[in-house]
Amino acid sequence: MFTSGLDPKPFSSPIDNYLARLHTKYSGFQEGSVADYIPELAKANPDWFGICIATRDGHVYEAGDTRQRFTIQSISKALAYGLALEDRGEDYILSRISVEPSGDAFNAISLKSGTGMPFNPMINAGAIATCGQIQSKGGLSRFDRILAYLSACAGRSLDIDTGVYQSESSTGHRNRAIGWMLRNFDIINEEPTDILETYFQQCSIRVNCRDLALMGATLANQGRNPLTKEQAIQPDFVDNILSVMSSCGMYDYSGEWLYRVGLPAKSGVGGGILAVLPGQLGIGIFSPALDAQGNSARGIKVCEDLAHELALHQFSNGSAPQPSLRLSYDGSQVSSCRRRSPQLQQTLRAIGHRIRVLELQGELIFSTFEPVVRLVLKRAPYCQFLILDLQNTVNIDDVSLKLIGQLHSDLLAQGVQIFICNMSKFSRLFRRKGLEQIVQFGNEDTALEHCENLLLQQMVGSGWNVVKPVSLMNHSLLGSLSEQERSWLDIQMDKGEAVKGDYLIRAGDAGDCLFLLLTGSVEVRLPSETGQAGNRVDVFEAGMCFGEMGFLDGSPRSADVVALDQITFRVLTRQLFDRLDNDYPQLKIKLLQQLSSLLSANLRKSNAELAAYKG
Amino acid sequence: MFTSGLDPKPFSSPIDNYLARLHTKYSGFQEGSVADYIPELAKANPDWFGICIATRDGHVYEAGDTRQRFTIQSISKALAYGLALEDRGEDYILSRISVEPSGDAFNAISLKSGTGMPFNPMINAGAIATCGQIQSKGGLSRFDRILAYLSACAGRSLDIDTGVYQSESSTGHRNRAIGWMLRNFDIINEEPTDILETYFQQCSIRVNCRDLALMGATLANQGRNPLTKEQAIQPDFVDNILSVMSSCGMYDYSGEWLYRVGLPAKSGVGGGILAVLPGQLGIGIFSPALDAQGNSARGIKVCEDLAHELALHQFSNGSAPQPSLRLSYDGSQVSSCRRRSPQLQQTLRAIGHRIRVLELQGELIFSTFEPVVRLVLKRAPYCQFLILDLQNTVNIDDVSLKLIGQLHSDLLAQGVQIFICNMSKFSRLFRRKGLEQIVQFGNEDTALEHCENLLLQQMVGSGWNVVKPVSLMNHSLLGSLSEQERSWLDIQMDKGEAVKGDYLIRAGDAGDCLFLLLTGSVEVRLPSETGQAGNRVDVFEAGMCFGEMGFLDGSPRSADVVALDQITFRVLTRQLFDRLDNDYPQLKIKLLQQLSSLLSANLRKSNAELAAYKG
Repeated sequence: MFTSGLDPKPFSSPIDNYLARLHTKYSGFQEGSVADYIPELAKANPDWFGICIATRDGHVYEAGDTRQRFTIQSISKALAYGLALEDRGEDYILSRISVEPSGDAFNAISLKSGTGMPFNPMINAGAIATCGQIQSKGGLSRFDRILAYLSACAGRSLDIDTGVYQSESSTGHRNRAIGWMLRNFDIINEEPTDILETYFQQCSIRVNCRDLALMGATLANQGRNPLTKEQAIQPDFVDNILSVMSSCGMYDYSGEWLYRVGLPAKSGVGGGILAVLPGQLGIGIFSPALDAQGNSARGIKVCEDLAHELALHQFSNGSAPQPSLRLSYDGSQVSSCRRRSPQLQQTLRAIGHRIRVLELQGELIFSTFEPVVRLVLKRAPYCQFLILDLQNTVNIDDVSLKLIGQLHSDLLAQGVQIFICNMSKFSRLFRRKGLEQIVQFGNEDTALEHCENLLLQQMVGSGWNVVKPVSLMNHSLLGSLSEQERSWLDIQMDKGEAVKGDYLIRAGDAGDCLFLLLTGSVEVRLPSETGQAGNRVDVFEAGMCFGEMGFLDGSPRSADVVALDQITFRVLTRQLFDRLDNDYPQLKIKLLQQLSSLLSANLRKSNAELAAYKG
Repeated sequence: MFTSGLDPKPFSSPIDNYLARLHTKYSGFQEGSVADYIPELAKANPDWFGICIATRDGHVYEAGDTRQRFTIQSISKALAYGLALEDRGEDYILSRISVEPSGDAFNAISLKSGTGMPFNPMINAGAIATCGQIQSKGGLSRFDRILAYLSACAGRSLDIDTGVYQSESSTGHRNRAIGWMLRNFDIINEEPTDILETYFQQCSIRVNCRDLALMGATLANQGRNPLTKEQAIQPDFVDNILSVMSSCGMYDYSGEWLYRVGLPAKSGVGGGILAVLPGQLGIGIFSPALDAQGNSARGIKVCEDLAHELALHQFSNGSAPQPSLRLSYDGSQVSSCRRRSPQLQQTLRAIGHRIRVLELQGELIFSTFEPVVRLVLKRAPYCQFLILDLQNTVNIDDVSLKLIGQLHSDLLAQGVQIFICNMSKFSRLFRRKGLEQIVQFGNEDTALEHCENLLLQQMVGSGWNVVKPVSLMNHSLLGSLSEQERSWLDIQMDKGEAVKGDYLIRAGDAGDCLFLLLTGSVEVRLPSETGQAGNRVDVFEAGMCFGEMGFLDGSPRSADVVALDQITFRVLTRQLFDRLDNDYPQLKIKLLQQLSSLLSANLRKSNAELAAYKG
C-alpha cells in the first residue's frame, strides 16, 4: 500500500522497457557485414548495438552499447553542410552544390554536366565541395571549426580517431580525384589537398550512439543543444540540413527510407544512423554491420520498428500542432483584483462582455494562430477590448507576430483595442518586429483592470475613479445602521493610519480584527520569498473593508496587506465585536448581516470565475 | 466608438489581405508557357491565376481565379496511388512499383533493370502501373472508382473534360509503349488497353484551385475531407501518399522544391499544384504557364513565397506539437462537489495530495505524451491515485494508448491506481486496445469523489460514509446554540420531506429560506434545457444546510436543488429569521456567526481552487 513521501517507490518507464525489448529483439539479427575498405573499420565488433532517443527537452532513453565510440563518417556531411551555410549563406552554397537526389552511388564522381556541380551535399563529391566552403577563422583551422561545430551539436568535446584518419587519408585516392574535378569546375577555389585532409579528419571524428541522438535532438530543437542550451546550429539553416537529409540522407535507400521510416536521417559506414523527428526528438542507432546500400543493417530494422511502433513517421497521423486557443472568457465572467463599489460592479457585470480575454498556448505558428485570428475577427464586432494572454505560450513565430500586428492596427482603426499580457519573455521579439505600440501588461489582472477602467470611465464619466475619503459614518459596512449606532461605533473603534508600503496585515497573523478603510487604498499580496511585487490578489479602497474572513472564522491571515498610499482606517477588534453580543445585539446583527452579504457576493464572484476557468 | 452587438462591424482578415497582395504581386509574372502537346491544353489562358489555402478544419482562403476549371493531369497520380494501396495493400504495391526518385524525366520509359519495376508512382510508368492495380468493384469501373475517390477528396462531384481525354488518348502512343513494357514485365497482369484509357480519363478529370486546396486539406486531415467529413482516404495510407509526393512529386525539381518550399506536393501540366503541410493545411495553386520542368511557373513562385512568408516549410522552426500537459493539481487543492463534514474535509486537506489530477490537452502522440509519462513516474511514488482528465484532449494515438495501458498496469502493481475521466469520445479507442480495465469516470468531479472516498475509507475506516440522520438538536448550524435556543427553534421551524427526484429549489426562485437537511442527500444542479444529469455543482447530506447565499443576500436562486433519496429537512424562513432580531437577538447572532463561518470556509475553498486552475 501507500508508503510515505520520504520513501518513494521506484517506477520503471514503459519507454525504457520498450527500448530494452527492441534491443533484445534485434540482438540476434546477423545480416550485413562490417565495412572493411580500411582495416581500422574492419575491427568493429558486429555485435555492438545501441539505441538512443533524445527528446527535445534533453531526456535521453538508452538501450545497449550507447557509449561505445565509433567514427561518425558520412553523418558528418549533414552537419558540416550547416557550417558551410553559416559561412557562405544559402545562395552561394546552392550555386556550388545542388540538392537533387542523384540516383548514383555515394562515391560516384557524379557532377552535373556543364556546371560540374555535385548533385547534393550527401554524396562524397558534394560533401568534399561543402568542406571546401568552410573557412578557417579566428585562428581556427577548417577542421578545428568542424570539430567544434559537431561537439556543440553533441553537447560535449569530441575527438578524432587518428588511426582511422590515417587509413582514410592513405587510401582516399578516389576522393582525391573528386577533389581535383571540383577544382577543375571551380566548385572549390583552391587546390584540394587541405580540403581533402580536413574531409578525412571530419569523417574520423569519434562519437557514440548517445551523441548521435543528441545531435538529432539539437536539430529537432531549432539547433539548440537541449542539454547545454548552446545554439549549436543557426536556426535559419536547420530546415536546409533536414531537407537534404530527407531527400538524400540514406544513399540509394533514401526514397524507401522516407516512405517506410519517414524521418530525415543520415547514416555512416561506421555503423551509425542519426534520425530526426523535426521539432520533436532525435534518434541515434549504432551497429556496425552494413547492408548492400551501406546503411547499418540492424539500424534500418530498428528504425522501421521505432517509426511504426512509436508512430514517428513524419507524415503519420496526429502529429499536428493544435490551435493555440487555451481559454476564452469575457470581463463579465472574470474581473480584475481591484474591488469595485457595488454600482461599478454592476456596471461591469452589464458591459464586461465588451472585454474579451483569449488565453493562448503552445507555439504560435500560422496554422495554430490562424484559428485565433478567425475567432478574434468573429468576436471583435462585439468588443471594445481584446486581451491576448501569453502566459502559456511557449513561442511566437514571425508570421504570428505579423498577424498580431495587423490585427492590432486593423481593429484599432475600427475602435477595438488589442492588449497583450504575460509577454515579458517575448518582449525582444515584439520590439524586433516594431510592435511596441501594442500596449502590454505584466499579467492578465492588470490588463483586465485597465480595460475595466476604460469601460467605467466611458460609462460613468470623468471622476468615476476619484476615491473620496469616507467618514466612518458613510462607510459601506455601516450602511444599515442607525445614526446612533454609528456614533456609538465611532467612539468605540480604534483609529489607524499608515503610509505607502506599510504592512497592515502579515500572512500568519491572528485574524483578530476587521479593517474599515476610510482613506486611500491597500493591496493584498500573497507572501513571496523573493519579495517581488506583482502577486496582488486584491485591491481595496476607501469605503471598503478587509480582513473579514479571518475575523469571522478565527483562522490566521493567509496573505499580506500593504498600504498603497497614505491611508486612514478604523479597526473593529474581536473584543469589541464580542462585547456587542450583550451590549448592543441589534448592532451586532446588522454588522453580521452586512458581512454575510459581502461574503456571499465574493463567493458568487469566485464561483463564476471558477466556472469560466473550468471552461 | 462601440456599436451595439446587434450591428456588428465588418472586419477583414489579414490572411485574406495577404493572399490578395500575393496574387497582385505575381499577376504580372510572365515566365513559362502553356502546355501545347495537345490543342485543348494550349487553349488555356496564361493569365488565369488562383491561390487557395484550406485549413484542416475546412476554412478556405481564396484569391483570384479559384473557380476556373482545368484538368488535374499528373496531380491525379498521387491520389490514385492511395486507391491502389487500398485495393492491394502496401506490400503488394511496393512489389510492383518502387518509391525511389528516378533522376529521369516524367515520361521516360525508365524501369528498374531486372524487375522492370517503375522507379516511383509519380512518373508516367509508375502511374500507369498504379492505375493497373486499381480494381473494378461493385459494378463500378476502374475509372468510376477513381472519379469517386477524387471527388470524395475534393468534397464535391467532379467530372471529366472529354475533349482533353480524347486528345490525350489519340496522341498517347508513348504511354501505350510504357503500358506494353509493364505488361512485358508482369507489372500489370492484363493487356494495357483499358488501363491506359482509364489513365487518360483520370488525367482529364476537371478540378479548380479550391478543389486542390481541399484535396490537400483532406491529406492534412488524416484523409477526412474537412467539409464533408467523409473519410475519403484511408488514414493508414496518407503517409504513403505524402511520402511519394515528398520525394518525387515535382518532377526533376523535387529535391530543390523540398529544400526551398518543404511541402509534399504534386503538380500537373494543366497548371495546378497541390501542396500539403501535413496535419495542418492544404494549398491549391492554378496558373497554366509551365516552366522547363513542367511545373506551373507562377505556382512555384507563389509557393516559395507562401512557404517563406507563412513559415510553412515542414522543417521550419516551431511547428512542433507541444507537451500535452495542460494543468496539474492535487486533491488537497481541488476537491469534488461532494460536501464533506468538517472532520472529513480536514482529512482530505491533509492527505488529498495523494490524489493527483493531470489535465491533458491536444493530440496525444509519442512526443507530446512522453513528457506526461515522465511526470507520472515522478509523481507516482507520492500518490495513490492519478486521474488523467481528457476533457481538452482531441485525439489519442495507439502509442499513447499503449503507454497509458502500461502505466496503468505497472503502477497498479505498486499500489497506485490510474483513473480516466472525460473520455467518452475515446471509449471506442480504449475498448479496441483492451483498456476497459482502466476505471473511467464521466467527469473530473466524479473521479475526484471516487478517489476521495477511497482515501477516506482507508483513513477513517468502515462506516466513514454512513450518513446518519441527525435531529435538529444535533444539526451543525445549531452547534453553538444552547439547549433552550435549539428547542425554541424546533418549535418554530417548518418541517419538510421529499422523495428522490423532488425539486426543493428551482433556479430563479426567491431566496427566502434556508434548508437544514436532517436525513438523506440533495444535489445542486445547474439548470439544463436538455434535462440531462451530470451537471451537479454541489452535494449536501444530512447535517448540512443549503440555500444560504440567496437567504443571506436576498438574490434569486441560481441553481436547482434535487433530492437524491428520501429526505427530511427543516426550513428557516426569512420571516422567522427577521423576527429573531427582536424576539431572540442572541440566537440570531449565533446563527449569523455560524453562517458567516460557513461562507468563509466556502470562499477559502473556491479561492484555493481558482488558484489551482489559474496554474
